[in-house]
Amino acid sequence: MGNVIIDLSMSLDGYICDRNGGDGGLHNWYFAPSTAENKGDQLVINETINDLGAIIMGKRTFSTGEEQGGYGDNPYKMPHFVITHHPPEKPVEGDTQFIFVTDGIESALKQAKAAAGDKDIAIGGGADISQQYLKAGLVDLLEIHLVHILLGSGLRLFENLGINPIDLESTRVIDSPTVTHLQFRVVK
Amino acid sequence: MGNVIIDLSMSLDGYICDRNGGDGGLHNWYFAPSTAENKGDQLVINETINDLGAIIMGKRTFSTGEEQGGYGDNPYKMPHFVITHHPPEKPVEGDTQFIFVTDGIESALKQAKAAAGDKDIAIGGGADISQQYLKAGLVDLLEIHLVHILLGSGLRLFENLGINPIDLESTRVIDSPTVTHLQFRVVK
Repeated sequence: MGNVIIDLSMSLDGYICDRNGGDGGLHNWYFAPSTAENKGDQLVINETINDLGAIIMGKRTFSTGEEQGGYGDNPYKMPHFVITHHPPEKPVEGDTQFIFVTDGIESALKQAKAAAGDKDIAIGGGADISQQYLKAGLVDLLEIHLVHILLGSGLRLFENLGINPIDLESTRVIDSPTVTHLQFRVVK
Repeated sequence: MGNVIIDLSMSLDGYICDRNGGDGGLHNWYFAPSTAENKGDQLVINETINDLGAIIMGKRTFSTGEEQGGYGDNPYKMPHFVITHHPPEKPVEGDTQFIFVTDGIESALKQAKAAAGDKDIAIGGGADISQQYLKAGLVDLLEIHLVHILLGSGLRLFENLGINPIDLESTRVIDSPTVTHLQFRVVK
């Protein structure tokens, strides 16, 4: 069975988007041209593409993707599970398989696990969805791409969790020019 | 001239103390016995002791130190500047030099620089004081000891900054069993 991974870019001050809902440059590392210096970034990106068997996201993240160029060129060919109360009426452009799940995070995870087999499942966007999975104790790994910036304001990943302290085990650190990739296992 | 450094232990979710003002285990790495695995922690601790010429702290941090065993065995022999409106009437126990500064953060920094000479100055405790120095553009380095835990609640270092985004340059990463030491230069 693969791992359930929260995989998000975050500023040092804990924000995953800026105050206007824009990305605040947090994904610049992802779209940067490959160089000798950012080999670590490429390793992380390739690993994600190879190891993931399914992606779970919220509706807002899905819609942002549609607005920002759509899914026609989506390099992630694994099934995408979108948690929403209102599935879109039109089919999604491109050959990525989108499954719209209307009955909650546990149903989405069950379906994603069936689709992923032995591969990993990423909770790949949305503070709210990620928080729900974390609170429910359903997350195995945190893959935090810690971007070397203080945004000063925005939306936080780790907010309103209402949890008791959770111990983490550092499983990998890859430092790169503009981002440090931190991977943690959630100690259960 | 040395660097002005914010030097604090912080949980992955951004807290520098727990909801009760306790340390939430964030300084366990600092007090842990030396082992082969935590050599990185010892390196960071020794470097701090060797390179610092002055420490600036808020009154609450100072008082917490007094309550938790006092300053009789304080290994940091450099002068300590405590920003407060109400200096204590009794002298502080031990041989550490404490200077109580009542006219604000810039005055404290000026005095600390004069005392430190070419050595570094740590803003060594207190979210509020650290935030004031950061907002005023007076910080050169962030030395964040990122502890492998989610506390879920507490007091944040990076909160209410009201700043525009600040770019950081990663200058060092040392991973250790329970903490990852992240050092950043503030790009000015």
